[in-house]
Amino acid sequence: MLNWKDAIKSLQALNEDFKKNAQYRLDQLTKPQGSLGVLEDLAIQLVGIYKSLDFSVDPVTSYVFVGDHGITEEGVSAFPSEVTTQMVYNFIQGGAAINVLTRNHHVHLKVVDVGMKEFVDNPKLIQANIKKGTRNFLYEKAMTKEEVNKAIEVGFQLGITEIEQGTNILSIGEMGIGNTTASAAVAAHLLNRSLEEMVGRGTGLDDKQWQHKREVIQKAFDFHSLSTKDPIETLTTFGGYEIAAMVGMIIAASFRQVPIILDGVITGAAALIAANIHPNTTSYMIASHQSEEPGHRFILEALNLTPLLQLSLRLGEGTGAILALPLIRSIQHLLQEMATFTEANVSEKNQ
Amino acid sequence: MLNWKDAIKSLQALNEDFKKNAQYRLDQLTKPQGSLGVLEDLAIQLVGIYKSLDFSVDPVTSYVFVGDHGITEEGVSAFPSEVTTQMVYNFIQGGAAINVLTRNHHVHLKVVDVGMKEFVDNPKLIQANIKKGTRNFLYEKAMTKEEVNKAIEVGFQLGITEIEQGTNILSIGEMGIGNTTASAAVAAHLLNRSLEEMVGRGTGLDDKQWQHKREVIQKAFDFHSLSTKDPIETLTTFGGYEIAAMVGMIIAASFRQVPIILDGVITGAAALIAANIHPNTTSYMIASHQSEEPGHRFILEALNLTPLLQLSLRLGEGTGAILALPLIRSIQHLLQEMATFTEANVSEKNQ
Repeated sequence: MLNWKDAIKSLQALNEDFKKNAQYRLDQLTKPQGSLGVLEDLAIQLVGIYKSLDFSVDPVTSYVFVGDHGITEEGVSAFPSEVTTQMVYNFIQGGAAINVLTRNHHVHLKVVDVGMKEFVDNPKLIQANIKKGTRNFLYEKAMTKEEVNKAIEVGFQLGITEIEQGTNILSIGEMGIGNTTASAAVAAHLLNRSLEEMVGRGTGLDDKQWQHKREVIQKAFDFHSLSTKDPIETLTTFGGYEIAAMVGMIIAASFRQVPIILDGVITGAAALIAANIHPNTTSYMIASHQSEEPGHRFILEALNLTPLLQLSLRLGEGTGAILALPLIRSIQHLLQEMATFTEANVSEKNQ
Repeated sequence: MLNWKDAIKSLQALNEDFKKNAQYRLDQLTKPQGSLGVLEDLAIQLVGIYKSLDFSVDPVTSYVFVGDHGITEEGVSAFPSEVTTQMVYNFIQGGAAINVLTRNHHVHLKVVDVGMKEFVDNPKLIQANIKKGTRNFLYEKAMTKEEVNKAIEVGFQLGITEIEQGTNILSIGEMGIGNTTASAAVAAHLLNRSLEEMVGRGTGLDDKQWQHKREVIQKAFDFHSLSTKDPIETLTTFGGYEIAAMVGMIIAASFRQVPIILDGVITGAAALIAANIHPNTTSYMIASHQSEEPGHRFILEALNLTPLLQLSLRLGEGTGAILALPLIRSIQHLLQEMATFTEANVSEKNQ
């Protein structure tokens, strides 16, 4: 069976001829050239990925990867660690934000336990637990290299299977109390940016708690004094199982050439790791939104991605990705269904 | 029959008790407080308008008001004036961007001739022509007060009828070669801002044409030397029939208390006039997006509206409004369908 390490050897860039076809088509449509703004760039990307003007972004599948974090022992989150499991029950019962959005936007939702502390026995939860939560990265590496490899493989295989079964666009999100701390550490290290720039209030820290969160990460940085920017090493040291699994799903999407919609700062950290493993992965990423977390902007800039939404969201679960999905569907329809100047007998621009 | 001038005597502010109910409900839902960002403000606005948590934004109707502009004689647009009529045929045949979007997003579309130069005989076009295009405002007032009154009344009566027939949200857009020039003049005058700040490239002017557009407006400003900021006087001098009709529809929405989705800079100019007629109209406006036209930002700031999208759109027709509609529908569903902390048995934030 193909594994993620084999897959990254053959990740392709987008097809430039098809990108040109998309630009040509956009310029024939009955609208001022370029007047759909950022959505025109998205159209070009989609055509470059699908290698067809007659693509369909549907069906769409939204994955929520769940994992717990040892670093929560240090009091870095506004919510207790048990909320991870409680929210998984909420996903199962259909009451969380991502349930409401995927239901109303006709998206398949799949929830994966890749690193939860507690075992939840329910057929609606995909069981792929690597370990019952990461280690506390203040004192040791969050994961082992082998665990990271396994977690990436979980996301990769789920992605490959999903695409084989017909999904045309993947969307990723996560749940895991403590994971904005892990993500901030990963991204600050990889981007060489200060913790003042990169660390946010997560689910709602006050000023003092926020400062504490930065101090905890700084102590961990001092403890590990990681000299390399190697993405796997960074992920192993500070990351989480759900972050690793999302890296795997990004690689699967890039390998099988379907777009993957990112959500907030935690999927952003996964995207940053994927991009550092192979830069071609960024060609398949769609940045759904720029979140309220301060570091997200720097992550998107580094990935050279333009967010579709800027709504100060900070909910996670893949909610921002699904909120942006109608824009992706809309540009598909505009590209495919609008009349051209010739078809509609409309005069073109004065020269 | 009630007319728009009567209606503005009784425009109400939003219901503060219902806004509080919305905030309370949002804070009970299984998500970090405030984590839906700008969409939470939108939820509060919607509940304040509908005076119910169980509102529905559907059905939605999108109006496109069409008018021609005498100022096109001065070469202020990248497209010839005939394109207004050609695009109306495109609307009728279903090939324009607004057709594609309203079709795919299940929105009723209505197109109104309120000031076209050419007569188009087609049952799909609502006939409400006041005059065959405005006068050239470089040499005389674009419209008479009586014409403006009639055009506002057209939009007002259409809005009232539409709401009586069950529409729960109105969306406005326009078509009219030359109308970014009219809008820029209206908005620059009302906001006391420079033409450098307020005048854009419209459908695609080059640097020289852009400078010419600013010079034409400056000459018109010098010619009229309008000493008043009276909104009707400003509209009469520089505006257009489609802009006036949109003012009327905004007043209808505010009077009957349904939300009205604005589009780009031209609907923004209409909104600015409406707000200057009565400030309570702004409570019913939803800013769908901030467009590429530079003046739009200043208009939205003056109206104290936060745009849902910032995608560098500059297409018009109401397209930005429909692109933002899924966000409005999404927050309705989130507010109404998400589980509360108690229902889902999820622990609340640490104190």
